[in-house]
Amino acid sequence: MKETGKPRPNEKEIKVEGHLIDSMILTKIWDRIMELGGDFDTLEFRVGKHKTDPSYARILVKGQTPEHLDDILTEIYPLGALAFEIAEATVAPAPADMVFPDNFYSTTNNPTQVYFNAEWIEVEGTMMDKVIVVNPQAKKARCKPFREVKKGDLIVVGEEGVRVKPPERPREATGIFSFMSSGSSSEKPAITIIKKIAQDLYNVKKTGGKIAVVAGPAVVHTGAAPALASLIRQGFVDVVLSGNALAVHDVEGDLLKTSLGISLREGVAAVRGCRNHLVAINEIFKAGTLRKAVEKGVLKNGIIYECIKKEVPFVLAGSIRDDGPIPDVITDTVTAQQKYKEQLKDVTMVLMLASTLHAIAVGNMLPSTVKLVCLDINPASVTKLLDRGSTQAVGVISDIGTFLPLLAEEIEKLNK
Amino acid sequence: MKETGKPRPNEKEIKVEGHLIDSMILTKIWDRIMELGGDFDTLEFRVGKHKTDPSYARILVKGQTPEHLDDILTEIYPLGALAFEIAEATVAPAPADMVFPDNFYSTTNNPTQVYFNAEWIEVEGTMMDKVIVVNPQAKKARCKPFREVKKGDLIVVGEEGVRVKPPERPREATGIFSFMSSGSSSEKPAITIIKKIAQDLYNVKKTGGKIAVVAGPAVVHTGAAPALASLIRQGFVDVVLSGNALAVHDVEGDLLKTSLGISLREGVAAVRGCRNHLVAINEIFKAGTLRKAVEKGVLKNGIIYECIKKEVPFVLAGSIRDDGPIPDVITDTVTAQQKYKEQLKDVTMVLMLASTLHAIAVGNMLPSTVKLVCLDINPASVTKLLDRGSTQAVGVISDIGTFLPLLAEEIEKLNK
Amino acid sequence: MKETGKPRPNEKEIKVEGHLIDSMILTKIWDRIMELGGDFDTLEFRVGKHKTDPSYARILVKGQTPEHLDDILTEIYPLGALAFEIAEATVAPAPADMVFPDNFYSTTNNPTQVYFNAEWIEVEGTMMDKVIVVNPQAKKARCKPFREVKKGDLIVVGEEGVRVKPPERPREATGIFSFMSSGSSSEKPAITIIKKIAQDLYNVKKTGGKIAVVAGPAVVHTGAAPALASLIRQGFVDVVLSGNALAVHDVEGDLLKTSLGISLREGVAAVRGCRNHLVAINEIFKAGTLRKAVEKGVLKNGIIYECIKKEVPFVLAGSIRDDGPIPDVITDTVTAQQKYKEQLKDVTMVLMLASTLHAIAVGNMLPSTVKLVCLDINPASVTKLLDRGSTQAVGVISDIGTFLPLLAEEIEKLNK
Amino acid sequence: MKETGKPRPNEKEIKVEGHLIDSMILTKIWDRIMELGGDFDTLEFRVGKHKTDPSYARILVKGQTPEHLDDILTEIYPLGALAFEIAEATVAPAPADMVFPDNFYSTTNNPTQVYFNAEWIEVEGTMMDKVIVVNPQAKKARCKPFREVKKGDLIVVGEEGVRVKPPERPREATGIFSFMSSGSSSEKPAITIIKKIAQDLYNVKKTGGKIAVVAGPAVVHTGAAPALASLIRQGFVDVVLSGNALAVHDVEGDLLKTSLGISLREGVAAVRGCRNHLVAINEIFKAGTLRKAVEKGVLKNGIIYECIKKEVPFVLAGSIRDDGPIPDVITDTVTAQQKYKEQLKDVTMVLMLASTLHAIAVGNMLPSTVKLVCLDINPASVTKLLDRGSTQAVGVISDIGTFLPLLAEEIEKLNK
Repeated sequence: MKETGKPRPNEKEIKVEGHLIDSMILTKIWDRIMELGGDFDTLEFRVGKHKTDPSYARILVKGQTPEHLDDILTEIYPLGALAFEIAEATVAPAPADMVFPDNFYSTTNNPTQVYFNAEWIEVEGTMMDKVIVVNPQAKKARCKPFREVKKGDLIVVGEEGVRVKPPERPREATGIFSFMSSGSSSEKPAITIIKKIAQDLYNVKKTGGKIAVVAGPAVVHTGAAPALASLIRQGFVDVVLSGNALAVHDVEGDLLKTSLGISLREGVAAVRGCRNHLVAINEIFKAGTLRKAVEKGVLKNGIIYECIKKEVPFVLAGSIRDDGPIPDVITDTVTAQQKYKEQLKDVTMVLMLASTLHAIAVGNMLPSTVKLVCLDINPASVTKLLDRGSTQAVGVISDIGTFLPLLAEEIEKLNK
Repeated sequence: MKETGKPRPNEKEIKVEGHLIDSMILTKIWDRIMELGGDFDTLEFRVGKHKTDPSYARILVKGQTPEHLDDILTEIYPLGALAFEIAEATVAPAPADMVFPDNFYSTTNNPTQVYFNAEWIEVEGTMMDKVIVVNPQAKKARCKPFREVKKGDLIVVGEEGVRVKPPERPREATGIFSFMSSGSSSEKPAITIIKKIAQDLYNVKKTGGKIAVVAGPAVVHTGAAPALASLIRQGFVDVVLSGNALAVHDVEGDLLKTSLGISLREGVAAVRGCRNHLVAINEIFKAGTLRKAVEKGVLKNGIIYECIKKEVPFVLAGSIRDDGPIPDVITDTVTAQQKYKEQLKDVTMVLMLASTLHAIAVGNMLPSTVKLVCLDINPASVTKLLDRGSTQAVGVISDIGTFLPLLAEEIEKLNK
Repeated sequence: MKETGKPRPNEKEIKVEGHLIDSMILTKIWDRIMELGGDFDTLEFRVGKHKTDPSYARILVKGQTPEHLDDILTEIYPLGALAFEIAEATVAPAPADMVFPDNFYSTTNNPTQVYFNAEWIEVEGTMMDKVIVVNPQAKKARCKPFREVKKGDLIVVGEEGVRVKPPERPREATGIFSFMSSGSSSEKPAITIIKKIAQDLYNVKKTGGKIAVVAGPAVVHTGAAPALASLIRQGFVDVVLSGNALAVHDVEGDLLKTSLGISLREGVAAVRGCRNHLVAINEIFKAGTLRKAVEKGVLKNGIIYECIKKEVPFVLAGSIRDDGPIPDVITDTVTAQQKYKEQLKDVTMVLMLASTLHAIAVGNMLPSTVKLVCLDINPASVTKLLDRGSTQAVGVISDIGTFLPLLAEEIEKLNK
Repeated sequence: MKETGKPRPNEKEIKVEGHLIDSMILTKIWDRIMELGGDFDTLEFRVGKHKTDPSYARILVKGQTPEHLDDILTEIYPLGALAFEIAEATVAPAPADMVFPDNFYSTTNNPTQVYFNAEWIEVEGTMMDKVIVVNPQAKKARCKPFREVKKGDLIVVGEEGVRVKPPERPREATGIFSFMSSGSSSEKPAITIIKKIAQDLYNVKKTGGKIAVVAGPAVVHTGAAPALASLIRQGFVDVVLSGNALAVHDVEGDLLKTSLGISLREGVAAVRGCRNHLVAINEIFKAGTLRKAVEKGVLKNGIIYECIKKEVPFVLAGSIRDDGPIPDVITDTVTAQQKYKEQLKDVTMVLMLASTLHAIAVGNMLPSTVKLVCLDINPASVTKLLDRGSTQAVGVISDIGTFLPLLAEEIEKLNK
């Protein structure tokens, strides 16, 4: 089927490789070419006889003009297409601190390599919407956000020489990801889903994986703090990422048995309850920090208490709506981003529990290879969080106040 | 403070009586007068020294014109105001079947009396948005909807001679209604709320009350059918009001272990699952009715099975979106309304579980004195259902799939 | 690549044909085989050189057992796979009125053919979740729901001999469907979307198509009734499908200038407003029907008025929550389904406007080839409505009260 | 009705004063006493004969113990009750920077006075959840949050000597607040509501008031940026409070005609669109600041452009989910809070447009006397924002993309 001769300026040969089960990739590439008004010829198409055999497609992409062709290529490279003749990645120096060269390459959250000095270099710290900075001496490349770019950094520009590998979907795994890939649980059997998630958490820990929890204050308001504390105590949480409110209400719950002034035992507004979260903040200011509050015996239970006892790190990022905020909160948002990123290194699985602000922040930092369970009672929040192209993301629309106690119970059963 | 002389045509004396704790009633009356641009003088105001003493207000209401006065009176009578000099209720005959006389009095869902032939007659079957038909011979009065009105029925017209008594809020009760009157549980401690509701259900049954459950198909989809079946088996449900889908998926769950084709054990789409609800319907058509399906041993578990075994009546009302529908469904909506109403007679407490269509229908049929717990994962649905002026209505925003198993567990504990 | 010899009992050859741009079909088939634990060999794969050339795949599907193979085939036939050697469809007689033979074939909403007496017969009236009844004499086949099945009807059983053709996505069209296929407009440019929908409506009418509107009462409550009336008057609506409430509040709006008692001009609760919808119902009972109310000059404006003036049919289906209902309402839900279906015959495009109950009913009756725009302010409602596998369905999350006036304005501009 | 003798230790006389139309206040006080298990005698009750006459109640509150009495008093003082014999407010020095004395008084957002040295001092800068710092020399008192408290500040403790005056509801005003006090517009006539809000904005400006807009990025995504820019250009916005995303997408819209990569004209994903917001950020980093980007002619249209041209201040507060963020963003959240507060001084009316994070922050800073219109498509967000006890807060559930263009149109009409 081979075409003879050289492609014209508005044409280019690309290839797509992978297992049959990745065939969705090819479909997406064809679709996008046609959406953009381009055309193509299939020069070669070898399909593996068996599902695990490699497949291969060689395609001549045609734009209406060379510029149109560039537009199309720009769009299909991040989907997994590769120029037939591998070109070197082009780099340009950052013209100033925090400034990208104009034609910068913008990353996806998929595993990515750059072809530089005739070698494929793996890009480290893959995250969405960053640039790739190449270190030619060290033969290294890594993702950088604006605030970390220094004048002179060699930044990949254009789309050539960059290879993106969308991860294959897991086939053989048990647990939640094997059966609910990228979907949300609207009206699905709730107890079954809880059991599957428990199994996944268990498997991650048994195989040495790392679990991060991003939690919003509704965990405390709905009375689920003891359940999260139990998960931490049982060793199923490696880091907690949250903000001021979670910590404040967790402390309020332990000191005053209320959350935002509502009695956790009775569900009614407590006397003088509307000042209770201020009392909690005040106690932490008096102690100095959360850790000191534990050491002085002020704080004796709860999510933060268990973190400190088990030496599980927690990062509290400030936001403009904070009361206080307590001394442990990182009020500079750029610094807070960095601390979150450090803790998310090497994470295997992330639970997002009734959090929006901090969960979106975490979502932006994760490569697509990390397993993600995102729970909220509001379907719109779940949709927003899953809408990041992650292939192993599961949304659960449920009530954290009933869901988390049942999950902690399941974990306990497995852990015996 | 008494005014001398007769009120002018645009003025009228009213009175408001009740306990101090009903004082909200007076506030509402004052507010509405002023909203409508009216004015008033307080002729007398006796407040009980103690909270259980009766209070009394006598007020001169002033409109800008006699017609304006009428407008104002029309609006404040249903709030609990009463003409100072009691007038006889006026009645007019229905001009035809299903036709009201023009100036018909439209009911609220509050306890209501009419002053007829110098006597206060209690209105039976109080429901919202109906007319009052008076039977002078029998000294009876009752609410009727359009379709039940017969030519010649004596229907109350105008607003005079009708006394409405909004129920006082419960003060001493335990359970959910004493602490969460008319509010919804957004971010409240979930387990606490479940315990309170369980206590209420328990108390209602121990004091000979009647409990109705209105349930949507999400009860089955989310895997909560065994929990509802357990409540029925334990004797905590006196009638189930629902539609075709609940029964179909309940049967599907027992026969094929799926709900809408999703395996209840695995949470994944079952092979050929999308025809399973049709198979369930077919089995019922083959058996003849649900009861026959139980007698023949086809149906062995589930919500409907327990109803039939315990002789708990269930009413399935048809809707235009039904598949089938199965023979037990009442496809005529006017007839279905009547069957629902019959079953709701003397009901003490209603649980609305993840239902919208049938729950709204039930809400329209209930007097304001019935206790109401309304659960849905969608806050908008809960708001819509509670927005009927009921004084003992509690909204719970949660996931029926996790909520109902925990509720059934609590009931079991209490029942021991 | 051809295999020799006969497939073993647990293996079967299938084929998939279509244009390249349908390649998603093949991906889905591969995926489903593997999800079910099956295996396959690709015997032949010819890909069209150009995007409009036909492609062809011949695949050997392998189950673990013959039964397992059957399971897999059952699942992939409706996705567009076809047995390599065409088999005749099997039929069995309905054992009784409203009863299917046990192994009945359950339809999708995609165009479908059955191979009967060595001929492909097009199935008429394609709808989801029905059976196919074959008339051998007339060489006809059509979809039937339970209530229309008569004893002895020849119903297709099993999965052999049935060919399903999921429609290709439109490529060259302008309007909303070319750019927002199967997605919802969360945070998309609203005015742009309105212009695209207006263009689609305009194109459908200019090419002789038929437009159905399914509307909920919120159209009236939000003040959008004049906009819908304008669309009808301008000739852009061929049928209105709704229920009692839309008509009642539309009449209330014309007669009393309120909707559920809220003044449409002032937005405030009108005096005695809570009885206004009952007054509206009463006026219709007095007139006899909506048409007579127009003829007698009682009803002078609004959605229903324009329908009657323009001879646009409307079907009002009853539901259990109806007040009244007015005489025009079909209270039997099975009859109402039939009336809806009659009106939906040959429809080209459907607008679902802030309706859930009636919109779901309509969704169940539509083949996947009908264009569908579904608008609601609640994302969950839109998701539920789009979740029917339609390939030309667009969801718009917006406020009908602001959306519809802007749409009517755009239509007016185009119509000049 | 006067009691003789001195109250016992568990009893205390209180008084409530105000106009009749504030009678809701008294109801709330009675209710709260009974909820807490207390009792009371009404010693005196003088009700104004006419609606504008002052009313007066003198009540003996009884607790079960002196401590119980204290609990009750603590709860009813903030509702507007006042000790019969005015006591001096007690103050205690802050034990350290950012630390309150233990028994600190926590403020509401209502106008508040403290009785200090036999004088009522007005508390300045009223905000919810703060403490009151008294300056005895200057006879001043003002609200302070944790981070502004200095060691030795004299902070009010306990509940005595503090007078809270919940504002009366407006009676004679036109506009949105006179008719929709504290309610949300679910299914209300949308165009009517828009006209009312336009009238309010117009009246505020004509009477020299100050209008603040809090806007989320959905304003840009939905294509409503030109409408907001128009409001600014017409002089109806005095300050814009927002975050990084609004500015970034506003710049992206002007420079690249997309928002988050979606073409604002076509509604489709633009080529290389997913890097467009990074390009926008990069252009601002290159220019230095937004103002410089305007001065250099880079930025020529949009919300930010109009702010700079009209010298309307804008404050962009950072959050952890920011990309960039651009140099104009205040990344320290405590500093950002202060900047917001400075700009909100003397504000008359606030529009919250499709914002959650920044809108909640602003809600926490506003006294209850500021008019508040809060728009979102998600009812839960609106509820959360209104749930702050403001008496002049209106929620609108609508689509910002259709709502804001219609509002800008109305303003233009009024402004002619």
